[in-house]
Amino acid sequence: MDNCLFCRIAAGEIPSDRVYEDEKVLAFRDIHPLAPVHVLLIPKKHIGSLNEVNGENADDVKAVLEAVPKVAGSLGLKERGYRLISNCGEDGGQTVMHLHFHLLGGEKFPSDKLF
Amino acid sequence: MDNCLFCRIAAGEIPSDRVYEDEKVLAFRDIHPLAPVHVLLIPKKHIGSLNEVNGENADDVKAVLEAVPKVAGSLGLKERGYRLISNCGEDGGQTVMHLHFHLLGGEKFPSDKLF
Repeated sequence: MDNCLFCRIAAGEIPSDRVYEDEKVLAFRDIHPLAPVHVLLIPKKHIGSLNEVNGENADDVKAVLEAVPKVAGSLGLKERGYRLISNCGEDGGQTVMHLHFHLLGGEKFPSDKLF
Repeated sequence: MDNCLFCRIAAGEIPSDRVYEDEKVLAFRDIHPLAPVHVLLIPKKHIGSLNEVNGENADDVKAVLEAVPKVAGSLGLKERGYRLISNCGEDGGQTVMHLHFHLLGGEKFPSDKLF
């Protein structure tokens, strides 16, 4: 996906502040943080959104979810907790059409207010 | 997990308004909806939170993520989009200590406001 911002970040063509990487996953700091800690986790393979998760790419998504506690641990968030969000499509507020999960931490998020 | 609310819902001991089920996954409507559509997706197997995702249970988490587009489709959300959220621990606002993902839809969520 030549024109996909996150594919280009994964390929190293666009610099990012990387906090975690493995064979299938990259995590990097959001350039417009909405919380004291705001990291994006992406599959390196292009998957457009949650709508496109299927049997063929689910192992890449699984790798992203397995990376979540590792990333949270390395950022010192594991004890206090954090929120993980993925926006899909226009109603969801998705702005980059490459599946990504926002990991937000460093403050207390209310349980009765999810957006 | 005898005392876990979501394990008991998965086992059918506590009724729920089910919208999707397969071998590893259950989705049911939240009894206190925070959006026009508010469904919870859980692995039937007990996993405490995102912090506990690991190589041994990641296939159950993968199954939950594979169910997301199916559930969104059956609820008529796939075209317009939706937001998927998992709260972990106290800062995250987690209230039930069984991993769950909130699927929220039916309204437009802002991209620059995630909580």
